[in-house]
Amino acid sequence: MAATTATNRRVILKEYVEGYPREEHMELLRGAEVPLRLTGTEPAGSVLVRNLYLSCDPYMRPKMSRPLRESYTAAFVPGDAITGYGVARVLDSSDPRLAPGDLVWGITGWEDYSVVTPPVTKFLAKISHHGGGGVPLSYYTGILGMPGLTAYVGFHEICAPKKGETVFVSAASGAVGQLVGQFARLAGCHVVGSAGSKEKVELLKTKFGFHDAFNYKEEPDLGAALKRCFPDGIDIYFENVGGAMLDAVLLNMRVHGRIAVCGLISQYNLADGEKDAVRNLGAVIAKRLRLQGFIEPDHKHLYPQYEAWVLPYIRDGTLAYVEDVAEGLESASKALIGLFHGRNVGKQLVRVADDESSA
Amino acid sequence: MAATTATNRRVILKEYVEGYPREEHMELLRGAEVPLRLTGTEPAGSVLVRNLYLSCDPYMRPKMSRPLRESYTAAFVPGDAITGYGVARVLDSSDPRLAPGDLVWGITGWEDYSVVTPPVTKFLAKISHHGGGGVPLSYYTGILGMPGLTAYVGFHEICAPKKGETVFVSAASGAVGQLVGQFARLAGCHVVGSAGSKEKVELLKTKFGFHDAFNYKEEPDLGAALKRCFPDGIDIYFENVGGAMLDAVLLNMRVHGRIAVCGLISQYNLADGEKDAVRNLGAVIAKRLRLQGFIEPDHKHLYPQYEAWVLPYIRDGTLAYVEDVAEGLESASKALIGLFHGRNVGKQLVRVADDESSA
Repeated sequence: MAATTATNRRVILKEYVEGYPREEHMELLRGAEVPLRLTGTEPAGSVLVRNLYLSCDPYMRPKMSRPLRESYTAAFVPGDAITGYGVARVLDSSDPRLAPGDLVWGITGWEDYSVVTPPVTKFLAKISHHGGGGVPLSYYTGILGMPGLTAYVGFHEICAPKKGETVFVSAASGAVGQLVGQFARLAGCHVVGSAGSKEKVELLKTKFGFHDAFNYKEEPDLGAALKRCFPDGIDIYFENVGGAMLDAVLLNMRVHGRIAVCGLISQYNLADGEKDAVRNLGAVIAKRLRLQGFIEPDHKHLYPQYEAWVLPYIRDGTLAYVEDVAEGLESASKALIGLFHGRNVGKQLVRVADDESSA
Repeated sequence: MAATTATNRRVILKEYVEGYPREEHMELLRGAEVPLRLTGTEPAGSVLVRNLYLSCDPYMRPKMSRPLRESYTAAFVPGDAITGYGVARVLDSSDPRLAPGDLVWGITGWEDYSVVTPPVTKFLAKISHHGGGGVPLSYYTGILGMPGLTAYVGFHEICAPKKGETVFVSAASGAVGQLVGQFARLAGCHVVGSAGSKEKVELLKTKFGFHDAFNYKEEPDLGAALKRCFPDGIDIYFENVGGAMLDAVLLNMRVHGRIAVCGLISQYNLADGEKDAVRNLGAVIAKRLRLQGFIEPDHKHLYPQYEAWVLPYIRDGTLAYVEDVAEGLESASKALIGLFHGRNVGKQLVRVADDESSA
């Protein structure tokens, strides 16, 4: 007879963070017994899941700060489990779209078991294309999940690339950057990436097919590095970092260039008054640039189109994809912290449980 | 018998400017005798004009700096007459589009008589709608010229306004700002402007029909002023100033807001390293903002459409338009300098000669 309860471990935010997050800002709580069926007391439409993979994403850092102003996403609540994208097995469901046994990706909790309640359940999408196709389940935290759609929308919709254009990608070995680089190459663009270590720069050039790459930490003058890589300027900048890199890029953009503002990870650990100064916005007029901020949830309707486009490229090996997998909930906080120090190589995620071990 | 030569006065840039331009950076040279016909030694397609009105525009300031990098427009050449938009009478022409007696607006020199040579002649447009319609000729330096098309393109094309949206305009009593405010009102938007004096703020509210306005020099906290005027946020920002105002606006934008980056006059007199820090670009992602730089020359093809749209509004008094006219070439440099201190009220221009006195 199957167990009716299980021990649920949770990673909670202990307190709001200033500066870089540290281990003591989070805590792994052990020992709560939770039922393995919905009890009927949950809101209608709730879904109980066994979490399998959790995603570490840069956007989670602003949610760790004391909420000062409205944003597109609410701050975490100290004492509650951290929430984020993940892959999970449905154990019980009062959502008619989902049934026990289904695999899903979407917003879940940093814990072994989560009860996902409406309206957050709308982000749970059933995984149909796993198995038999050589597609690891974990890919739904990345290339087949939020970062994948982010890269696709940001590059193809926001940047509107044309064959032969020049593309620069920062944080280029990360979950989104590695995909943008490859999408750019597939679109016939000349693509250069920046990253923060020699190992990552090698990965960009050998594994992901960037035409060139540089280690921004070893460049005394970012503007000179960009000029070297783009003697005729940059048509498209896929912005993942902000700050000094953005300021240098602005001066190296070409007329009618486009900047997809996806992330500003260099700024997320700085207080409001300490954020890096951007001073070269005059280039926005002189070069007639378009800067467009975007977030993936606004573009969910494009997911089926993206999935159909990207799956064949994954299956036939056209697209490479590198993950950095931390093992177990006990390593989750360290993995998330590492993201802000560039310790991950490729998409950072956490394996919570093997699917076979799902209750 | 008509004179065959005339005395030509010219306003030259004496040296490149750092900081705010001062009278000693320019000089009015008197006394050169110039022929009143083309001599045949000019490049084919040249046009000789008698200048009537000259326009003082903020974009002229970057052209007064030592050229450090490519821009959309070349720096002025010390020793040469300053160039800019103006209204003129054609005296002689080897451009088949233009004949003696024609009135034109476009790029000319800060002098009594100019020989405009190709390719600059492409900016000379024949004035067809002057006279008999209550349209002052000087309007072709403003509402019917470059600033008018700038306001039209920036607001209607770049900002894509929808009825009921909120619009903020900085430098709102200037040549472009006063028009954007009125275009916004005509489009059914709620429009607020900022300016730098009590007199200008009154003008915005009484003459130009802004729903509200404030004097940015008297606001200790620009963000608080914007919050007061836009409790629910700003959908459209028409950017004329940059710097601290842009930083404050970013935090007060609404989701999916649009910023037409037209000018950054607060920054033009600052050296590269001294330009104001913009630190709130995180809002570009959180609010999914679009910042779009633009310049009027890219949109010349829309001029006939704009002229046909705006002329009836001028003639029936729907649109108000305020000019600040400096008298004579001898006051031109002071008028241009005043623009960067906000001394002008309305569109700053210089009357060089009455049309009747054209040679």
